[in-house]
Amino acid sequence: MNKFVYMFSEGNGTMRELLGGKGANLAEMSNLGLPVPQGFTITTEVCTKYYNEGQVLSDDVKKQIFSSLAKLEKLTGKKFGDNKNPLLVSVRSGARASMPGMMDTILNLGLNDEVVEVVAKLTNNPRFAYDSYRRFIQMFSDVVMGLSKKRFEKIIDEMKDKKGVKLDTELNADDLKELVKLFKAFYKQEKGVDFPQDPTEQLMEAILAVFRSWDNERAIYYRRMNNIPSSWGTAVNVQSMVFGNMGDDCGTGVAFTRDPATGENQLYGEYLMNAQGEDVVAGVRTPSSIQDLAEQNPAVFKQFNEICKILEDHYNDMQDMEFTIEKGKLYMLQTRNGKRTANAALRIAIDFVKEGRWTEQEALMKIEPAHIDALLHPQFDADELKTKNKEGHDIASGLAAAPGAACGKAYLTAEKAIAKAQAGEKVVIVRLETSPEDIEGMAVSQGVLTARGGRTSHAAVVARGMGACCVAGCNDLIVDEENGCFTLNGKIFKEGDVISFDGNTGKIYDCAIKTVEPKISGDFDVVMKWADKYRALHVRTNADTPKDAAKAVEFGAEGIGLCRTEHMFFEADRIMAVREMIVSKTVEGRKAALAKILPMQRGDFEGIYKAMEGRPVTIRFLDPPLHEFLPHTDEEMAELAKDMGLTFEEIKETVTSLHEFNPMLGHRGCRLSITYPEIAEMQTRAVIEAAINVNKEKKWNIIPEIMIPLVGEVKELAFVKNVVDQTAKTVMKEKGVEIKYLVGTMIEVPRAALTADEIAKQAEFFSFGTNDLTQTTFAFSRDDAGKFLEDYYAQKIFENDPFARVDQIGVGRLVKMAAKLGRETRKDIHLGVCGEHGGDPSSVEFFHNAGLDYVSCSPYRVPLARLAAAQANIANPRK
Amino acid sequence: MNKFVYMFSEGNGTMRELLGGKGANLAEMSNLGLPVPQGFTITTEVCTKYYNEGQVLSDDVKKQIFSSLAKLEKLTGKKFGDNKNPLLVSVRSGARASMPGMMDTILNLGLNDEVVEVVAKLTNNPRFAYDSYRRFIQMFSDVVMGLSKKRFEKIIDEMKDKKGVKLDTELNADDLKELVKLFKAFYKQEKGVDFPQDPTEQLMEAILAVFRSWDNERAIYYRRMNNIPSSWGTAVNVQSMVFGNMGDDCGTGVAFTRDPATGENQLYGEYLMNAQGEDVVAGVRTPSSIQDLAEQNPAVFKQFNEICKILEDHYNDMQDMEFTIEKGKLYMLQTRNGKRTANAALRIAIDFVKEGRWTEQEALMKIEPAHIDALLHPQFDADELKTKNKEGHDIASGLAAAPGAACGKAYLTAEKAIAKAQAGEKVVIVRLETSPEDIEGMAVSQGVLTARGGRTSHAAVVARGMGACCVAGCNDLIVDEENGCFTLNGKIFKEGDVISFDGNTGKIYDCAIKTVEPKISGDFDVVMKWADKYRALHVRTNADTPKDAAKAVEFGAEGIGLCRTEHMFFEADRIMAVREMIVSKTVEGRKAALAKILPMQRGDFEGIYKAMEGRPVTIRFLDPPLHEFLPHTDEEMAELAKDMGLTFEEIKETVTSLHEFNPMLGHRGCRLSITYPEIAEMQTRAVIEAAINVNKEKKWNIIPEIMIPLVGEVKELAFVKNVVDQTAKTVMKEKGVEIKYLVGTMIEVPRAALTADEIAKQAEFFSFGTNDLTQTTFAFSRDDAGKFLEDYYAQKIFENDPFARVDQIGVGRLVKMAAKLGRETRKDIHLGVCGEHGGDPSSVEFFHNAGLDYVSCSPYRVPLARLAAAQANIANPRK
Repeated sequence: MNKFVYMFSEGNGTMRELLGGKGANLAEMSNLGLPVPQGFTITTEVCTKYYNEGQVLSDDVKKQIFSSLAKLEKLTGKKFGDNKNPLLVSVRSGARASMPGMMDTILNLGLNDEVVEVVAKLTNNPRFAYDSYRRFIQMFSDVVMGLSKKRFEKIIDEMKDKKGVKLDTELNADDLKELVKLFKAFYKQEKGVDFPQDPTEQLMEAILAVFRSWDNERAIYYRRMNNIPSSWGTAVNVQSMVFGNMGDDCGTGVAFTRDPATGENQLYGEYLMNAQGEDVVAGVRTPSSIQDLAEQNPAVFKQFNEICKILEDHYNDMQDMEFTIEKGKLYMLQTRNGKRTANAALRIAIDFVKEGRWTEQEALMKIEPAHIDALLHPQFDADELKTKNKEGHDIASGLAAAPGAACGKAYLTAEKAIAKAQAGEKVVIVRLETSPEDIEGMAVSQGVLTARGGRTSHAAVVARGMGACCVAGCNDLIVDEENGCFTLNGKIFKEGDVISFDGNTGKIYDCAIKTVEPKISGDFDVVMKWADKYRALHVRTNADTPKDAAKAVEFGAEGIGLCRTEHMFFEADRIMAVREMIVSKTVEGRKAALAKILPMQRGDFEGIYKAMEGRPVTIRFLDPPLHEFLPHTDEEMAELAKDMGLTFEEIKETVTSLHEFNPMLGHRGCRLSITYPEIAEMQTRAVIEAAINVNKEKKWNIIPEIMIPLVGEVKELAFVKNVVDQTAKTVMKEKGVEIKYLVGTMIEVPRAALTADEIAKQAEFFSFGTNDLTQTTFAFSRDDAGKFLEDYYAQKIFENDPFARVDQIGVGRLVKMAAKLGRETRKDIHLGVCGEHGGDPSSVEFFHNAGLDYVSCSPYRVPLARLAAAQANIANPRK
Repeated sequence: MNKFVYMFSEGNGTMRELLGGKGANLAEMSNLGLPVPQGFTITTEVCTKYYNEGQVLSDDVKKQIFSSLAKLEKLTGKKFGDNKNPLLVSVRSGARASMPGMMDTILNLGLNDEVVEVVAKLTNNPRFAYDSYRRFIQMFSDVVMGLSKKRFEKIIDEMKDKKGVKLDTELNADDLKELVKLFKAFYKQEKGVDFPQDPTEQLMEAILAVFRSWDNERAIYYRRMNNIPSSWGTAVNVQSMVFGNMGDDCGTGVAFTRDPATGENQLYGEYLMNAQGEDVVAGVRTPSSIQDLAEQNPAVFKQFNEICKILEDHYNDMQDMEFTIEKGKLYMLQTRNGKRTANAALRIAIDFVKEGRWTEQEALMKIEPAHIDALLHPQFDADELKTKNKEGHDIASGLAAAPGAACGKAYLTAEKAIAKAQAGEKVVIVRLETSPEDIEGMAVSQGVLTARGGRTSHAAVVARGMGACCVAGCNDLIVDEENGCFTLNGKIFKEGDVISFDGNTGKIYDCAIKTVEPKISGDFDVVMKWADKYRALHVRTNADTPKDAAKAVEFGAEGIGLCRTEHMFFEADRIMAVREMIVSKTVEGRKAALAKILPMQRGDFEGIYKAMEGRPVTIRFLDPPLHEFLPHTDEEMAELAKDMGLTFEEIKETVTSLHEFNPMLGHRGCRLSITYPEIAEMQTRAVIEAAINVNKEKKWNIIPEIMIPLVGEVKELAFVKNVVDQTAKTVMKEKGVEIKYLVGTMIEVPRAALTADEIAKQAEFFSFGTNDLTQTTFAFSRDDAGKFLEDYYAQKIFENDPFARVDQIGVGRLVKMAAKLGRETRKDIHLGVCGEHGGDPSSVEFFHNAGLDYVSCSPYRVPLARLAAAQANIANPRK
């Protein structure tokens, strides 16, 4: 028979997968001889079994629980329901990965009408006994029976009113005894049965409740955010209670071996005397600093310090611990590697290396890539955020699409945002979705909030590129542009109202929250240098302007992997020429319009080449369908007609004829250059002329990389490549200069991956466009999938957003297939990724393992990608 | 050095690839000792070389041409430009596959101002000589120099006016001599140089022109229609001229060894005395029946009959021959397997088997699948069609999307078409595109013409299912529904005007053309029985109604491979309940609406099961996005609101919230059942209840096959399958009956193919939805691709429409991968295809070779698929 339950003495710290983090560490501390209240752990396997078997515990599991309970009773000399020495236990979740606060916990289990009296007598403290009992009823009713805690709080409030007191602590033993009666009566009224008196029944129900809580909404959300598979399950820890609330020689607290905010090497934490754990968190009384314990109880403080040292040495990382003092005796209830701020993570890593505890590689593995990200963006003031959350100002949420924090007056159009920003307001922009015309408005905003679209929607991609915060796809947002207002979860806001939102969590607040600007310390540079030393994957950036390019170089980009030329087409002074080209009916007309764009486009490239200081630059030719450049309302069309000297009907006809049912699968990418080779000609001319000019001025040797998008068939590429080659030849002849350039393609259509051996005959490099490849491989529109993906998460069909984290099984298979086929044809073909996945750590790891040469991501993601690439290579070194 | 030119005596009939059909057959006839004017063939390789080398002839090719010319001069004793015995030649194209009339031909080459006089003297027939010369100038100017023939015709007309005559034949030798002068003057005026007098120069220019004509527009179109790769190239035949127009002992004609219209075993053909080939075709004089030759020249007739027998025996097929009689001597100019009508094809096949010439397998291989198709649909009267084409009534063309011919009064809405059809008019429906609401209007129409969409557009798919003719994606069609008119290539039509269009060619006519109803003969059954005997692939049908199902059974369908349940949702009496479901905000509301649909849906399935008489039925669950069922104009929305007892705003909000940017990649397929499991519940209930009812009534044992669409991840399928299984269990319990049913999935998303091993764990069968798989593999929207695919054909990037003929390289690779992976997991997994490709012969062959179990196609395509499956298995027998 499988072993489903382990006494703490039977486990150890390596058994994290089976016992969960908490269980393994309790066992380990126990093995180290530290003072740990005894108990047992029900394994994570039982959780999986529980779900597989229709949410019940099998008889063999129950049997092992009962036998472990018997052992615990023997160890402690206490017994469930005993009228001399009753056993009370806590029942806590504990998954393999820490999921703080996501699952449920029950304390004081074992209390009933008789035991409470025994406890009152044994402790000579009836107030303590009844306070513990009422807490237990409340917690059990909430966690196990789904009766909201708040409804009990109401009964307490009524009692306090009656008694004319303000604080819970002002209620005396009799009051609490009365409260227990009221609680039980309420329970019976709601549930139709008495509150369970049998401790064993209480225990079994509590265990089931903890397993159930593995699948509550916030746990599912947390797992998705942190890439924790639902198959891992949680363990359940049953531990005999020790009490910090039995009197003034009792207390409880939490502490870190180093300062989790700064990383400074000194004990950090707080505690409360005569309190149970939840009081510390609840904030009714102000806890003392852990340092004060030195005075209050020097012996315990000394012992605790020693334990801290043992644990930090033993686990070789900064520890986060919970402890309780019961009648002057110290008990350790938990230890784990401590969560830390980004700055602390760097400081600790550097200190640990200096202290000889970690190698540089080990230190790199300890830093979370998300920390790097946080360092580069404004964040909400932590205390204020905590308060606003507690006060329920988080009235809606969307997808955390671009990191950072935004607070400002909300405006619904780019024009208004620009006007108000110029007038000195801090603004945020709120839209159904954004389009390329909104870019300038987005640039002046603190952040972007949209109702539609996912993590690779226009809003998300552009915001990330700008380093701006974005919350996208908020289903609870309704935008009423016409009336200048919007609603969030039913609450109406007018333009100019202040809102805040958090690009790290997706939460939206109906109030102002102070933001803190990022500060980059010297530690950042040290860590980034380490990362560069140990990574194999190169990191490029997606940048469309000299400004973005310069930013990316500052962040360590080694080149541009994706320069989207269409972004240049939208600028106010060019869009007219672009539209002129689109409405032209003849090649000559289009060429005339393109001739106007040429000098501007050439200037763009010159600027970008200069910003990149000779580093490689991959330029993607025009990609979006042409209708994206045209106006869509009758009013705008009329205006355009006037500007163009055409009739409204002519413009309308062009717009209508360009309309597409599925633009994602429409007339775009290389298909544009096949219909209108003159566009590719103009772009080639701009690329080559700019390179020649800058090479001449700077004495550099720029080798431009021209990238043809949306190729699915080698003949498409061959056609466009021929246009490029012919034009380049002409330009070089005109200029009397020969330069080298490369022509390659995006691999973003399944057929390109499937026929990559053929395509490599024409392509000198591949860049995986994993955004579009994800769309086509799944048949998911990134603009529409937001709606139904929520249902997929709820049903556990997906645990991750495939647009945020590359789908290794399907899309990944195509990537690996294409890499293999491409190299079969062209051994030295250069392989990169320029989809949004290039900035996601787990995807970076996948691309490293798939043997690609580089990833390319938005400038603000470059440092994160450098770290992730180093971690991938340390975990799985490339030969 | 490669051999680029072959004398006829050096070739033979097996060298078709190198010498083209005409060249190989001329060589073969020459070898057989038949009277063939000597000559030589420039190989198809030279054509490819010509294009690869930038449309020039290399020196080595030229050298071989000159040396072959010298040999020909020796053989014939004639010389180019000779003033005693001048050599005149014809220069003709001849590809591997017959492409009648698509490429260019030049006769009488070698004539110049001197030679014409020699010929006049030699033949003692100046009229003949100058007539030949003026024809040569005309043909050369047209074919080689691009001077339209018509401009010369105008000069002839002027001459005839001047002379007061009506027929060309009334012009005498002097007139023609004058005409030659005028022609040459016109040539010089247009081209700035004299008409070339050097026969060798004439020859080289003519050869280049023939190679050029391989890539003219109509040749490209013909190749695409007939699946002839452009890489094949054409050969050029240079043959010494014989003349049928030298006097009354001369003549020319064409003949078939059997009647090409009926297949009857008797010589069929026509000839004209004192004429050149083009006169027979031009129809100025009425030719005589070949039988009349028996009287006019018994010796030649006897010889010709003997040659016919030799050729039919030798080639073992009905022959189509050209001959010329020069001064009483018979010359064979060409022989080839004769084109024949569908009925003739069957008759000839059966006769050849009876005559012991062919085995049944050989006979099946000789029948073109398209013939079978033609037998099932109305066609235009051949003579009338020829006339209308000649008169230029074909004013526009679109994609030949569903076979047949349609002629009727044109209406722009389904409502009007229905009303007018009920009033007894023959109608055709003309629309921008069709939608499911148009189905009834389409059903009463002779045919459907649309401006948008391709061969798998809604219009095309539905029309094919109905056996109706459809021309889709006509770029020259502008529909102005508001004003009740439309334009075709600029010509305006009002509703009620008669047009005709041809679903086999895509041509649209501005006039009425008589249609001929199809007749199915006993021969059809004989051939279909042979096909069934020799095929391995099963053939099912795509049918959504009992009527379609019954039709398909009549045509030999062995089951239903695709029953699209959404079509049932659109019927007038159901759409309200469907809309009620969509606008409901609660599960209960949706369930109440679905309960109304259930009895109707169950009735549908009962009807279909009965029509299929116990054959397997695969039912696909609801597939399209829900917004397809909602109205889109404000007016209709207001009406719906009224009907539903909701406000306009509520309906509008639902419509807006369901809007998608890319519906093809949106909330559809299994995604619907994941969000709204109650839809799958209702559909399962209808499927299972109907099967139980019909089984009981008929004592059958129907095993319904439930097919879940758009699966990309096995967990999607597992989720929906669980809903199906739970519901089926409940239904069977209620009914007290256990029945077997299968649950499978469409493979129509690349990720499904890539992870087919996983998906097969849940799926009991796969059906390849190659329409959607083509869309996603290429990232082509079938509704939008029509526009840019034209450019792809023009640039030879594609030679075929991937929606009509399965892309074997990309999409095919996914099909093979999925079949292999699926069978690895589930050895006996049933594999079929239900995309439109199931009715395309070359695709059927591919699916046979890929080892699938069945194809499923629209009822009218079933016989064609049966034949194609037999041909595939004869060509590559399955073990």
